[in-house]
Amino acid sequence: MRSKLPNLGMSIFSKMTGLANQYGAINLSQGFPEFDTPEFLKRRLADYVQQGVNQYAPSAGIAPLQQQISALVKRRYQANINADDMVTVTSGATEALFVAIQSITRSGDEIIVFDPAYDSYKPAIELAGGKAVHVALSAPGYMIDWAEVKRLINDKTRAIIINTPHNPSAKTLKLADLTSLKKLVIQHDLYVISDEVYEHITFDEQPHLSVLRDPELFERSFVVSSFGKTFHCTGWKMGYCIAPSKLTVEFRKLHQYVTFSSFTPAQFALADMLAEEGAHVDSLAQFYQHKRDCLVAALASSRFQVLPSEGTYFLLLDYSQLSELGDVAFCEYLVKEIGIAAIPLSVFYDTPTGDRVIRLCFAKETNTLLAAAEKLCQL
Amino acid sequence: MRSKLPNLGMSIFSKMTGLANQYGAINLSQGFPEFDTPEFLKRRLADYVQQGVNQYAPSAGIAPLQQQISALVKRRYQANINADDMVTVTSGATEALFVAIQSITRSGDEIIVFDPAYDSYKPAIELAGGKAVHVALSAPGYMIDWAEVKRLINDKTRAIIINTPHNPSAKTLKLADLTSLKKLVIQHDLYVISDEVYEHITFDEQPHLSVLRDPELFERSFVVSSFGKTFHCTGWKMGYCIAPSKLTVEFRKLHQYVTFSSFTPAQFALADMLAEEGAHVDSLAQFYQHKRDCLVAALASSRFQVLPSEGTYFLLLDYSQLSELGDVAFCEYLVKEIGIAAIPLSVFYDTPTGDRVIRLCFAKETNTLLAAAEKLCQL
Ligand SMILES: CSCCC(=O)C(=O)O
Ligand SMILES: CSCCC(=O)C(=O)O
Repeated sequence: MRSKLPNLGMSIFSKMTGLANQYGAINLSQGFPEFDTPEFLKRRLADYVQQGVNQYAPSAGIAPLQQQISALVKRRYQANINADDMVTVTSGATEALFVAIQSITRSGDEIIVFDPAYDSYKPAIELAGGKAVHVALSAPGYMIDWAEVKRLINDKTRAIIINTPHNPSAKTLKLADLTSLKKLVIQHDLYVISDEVYEHITFDEQPHLSVLRDPELFERSFVVSSFGKTFHCTGWKMGYCIAPSKLTVEFRKLHQYVTFSSFTPAQFALADMLAEEGAHVDSLAQFYQHKRDCLVAALASSRFQVLPSEGTYFLLLDYSQLSELGDVAFCEYLVKEIGIAAIPLSVFYDTPTGDRVIRLCFAKETNTLLAAAEKLCQL
Repeated sequence: MRSKLPNLGMSIFSKMTGLANQYGAINLSQGFPEFDTPEFLKRRLADYVQQGVNQYAPSAGIAPLQQQISALVKRRYQANINADDMVTVTSGATEALFVAIQSITRSGDEIIVFDPAYDSYKPAIELAGGKAVHVALSAPGYMIDWAEVKRLINDKTRAIIINTPHNPSAKTLKLADLTSLKKLVIQHDLYVISDEVYEHITFDEQPHLSVLRDPELFERSFVVSSFGKTFHCTGWKMGYCIAPSKLTVEFRKLHQYVTFSSFTPAQFALADMLAEEGAHVDSLAQFYQHKRDCLVAALASSRFQVLPSEGTYFLLLDYSQLSELGDVAFCEYLVKEIGIAAIPLSVFYDTPTGDRVIRLCFAKETNTLLAAAEKLCQL
């Protein structure tokens, strides 16, 4: 059979988790927490299942969850959004990204993405008949040259996808970036897809600069987030998209034919969690900053160059002082010989830069991080 | 914003359920059970959540669930499939249908669908740049003229979508239909997408004629099913697709970028349910046949013409002796004035036939069915 995605195979996350399991390695590859979902949230979910809230939710999500999401963005970003016609609950951020991209991309359209780019953007663009136009960013700074972005914009350009805090680079966009972005997208009448799934995980007192903070920018944006990252429940596949009403109308048209709706009892449980346990969200950055600091400290005596992690639960290591191997081969060596599963950065590039950098996930127990660091320090 | 689906608005199911709630009507429109998920399944789900199985499942689904699905189709259809590389768990049958359609449809491709057609087929085809070619079937028999289907096949035809037991007509395909289908798809090298979400709900001792029973037909097919229909948990959005390895490779490539994976604790719970409570599946047809018979008997004194329901949890009523209204207007009248929400059949047609037929869902408690029938008998 002729493939619709001829250059793609199994996702790097599935592949590395598979190898980690096969070789009994410490799995710091695929991004998911080793610790469990908060007790309160699990109990509520179990209660709602038991109470019998097990039939279809409204396609856009249940009203209490839409309202809690709206209250959350008001509290965190001083953003006023209308819960009813701007918030759509999705089956994970993956579905939200897929639907947002499909909503605006037509045959021949160009969508600008920054490499290293999360692996689902490009297939979603291509399945809609569009073309991903890549802007490659390099270690260690992964800075965006907005003049280069401007040069790539033409009549076919439809949107720019941003991601902050950024996976895999662990960088955050700064106010100057958002100002440049806003200027460009208004001038050229472009949409923005803003992947903010790590919105609550920013370090060193930095606030998260959500697109939601700027009404003019938000006006042309789809903002995507994820409960999995925030509440340690990646396996629940619950996310959402916030967009202005006009864009939401279109988003929902597609969403209703892609998944229709998402796990009903989890929607009620998440609404309660947001209403009653808001402190969890506010303490998440501190929680992960501690883990980052723990891993960075434990790697101090290693030969890796540790790149700065400003947000997300990822840390990049430059291994160029250790090995001449390409990063895919180096990760294969790490998982098979050293017992550490990591993610090579080159797979997130259309044209790899030649950087020798790997990504570790530090959403793990301290013991796991220390055990991993010990192995890495011996290299 | 320019719409990707300009002729589509809110799905008829969302619309009618919304009206039912607004007017306090008995909701026999959107297809979902009034009764709850089996205790065993709910308890297992709660247990797995509590035990902490809350992170990403493998994208294709957890192995125990794949194996139970494989055992189920062996038991029910004597079909030998390889769990590992032929079964993919999805976020509801809606996602499975969307991904299957997207996997094989390219710009300009034609996909044959039988009207009345489930509302998600056409948008999925169009979002892939394809064209739905409609074969209209009429009340009361909804018989397929395979010679007509043959005449519609040309170089651009890529696939035929079938659905048995059929929503909304409540008809099942017969052996002669499958024989004709098989001849055509082999002769013209077409794929089959077989929507079998009501596979366990066939009446009057009729076995379900799954595409899985015929290896030659299955070889070119995506078979889609739904746990929501089988286990009264439509809100869990759990379904799956069975396809030969070569097709599954392609299906999974897309699935990993559409939703990646589905609610992990439900996968473990469903695997247990299938392993330990198989009798539920085997008794489902009887359970719903009883409800069908109850509703049909209660409508005997009405002026509606009740069409035969061979499977699914739907019953069609021809109201042409009662009203000159079109079916959309008649359903509006029913929900607002009579207190019954039903689904008009014309919305499932590209070119409505002029039949005056509505669909009722009988996945309801006996009292609800009797109360609804009482209202309908007064018309
Ligand atoms: C959907 S699996 C990928 C998890 C993730 O976001 C990552 O590891 O980057
Ligand atoms: C996904 S909502 C539609 C439910 C259904 O299958 C129907 O009512 O036909």
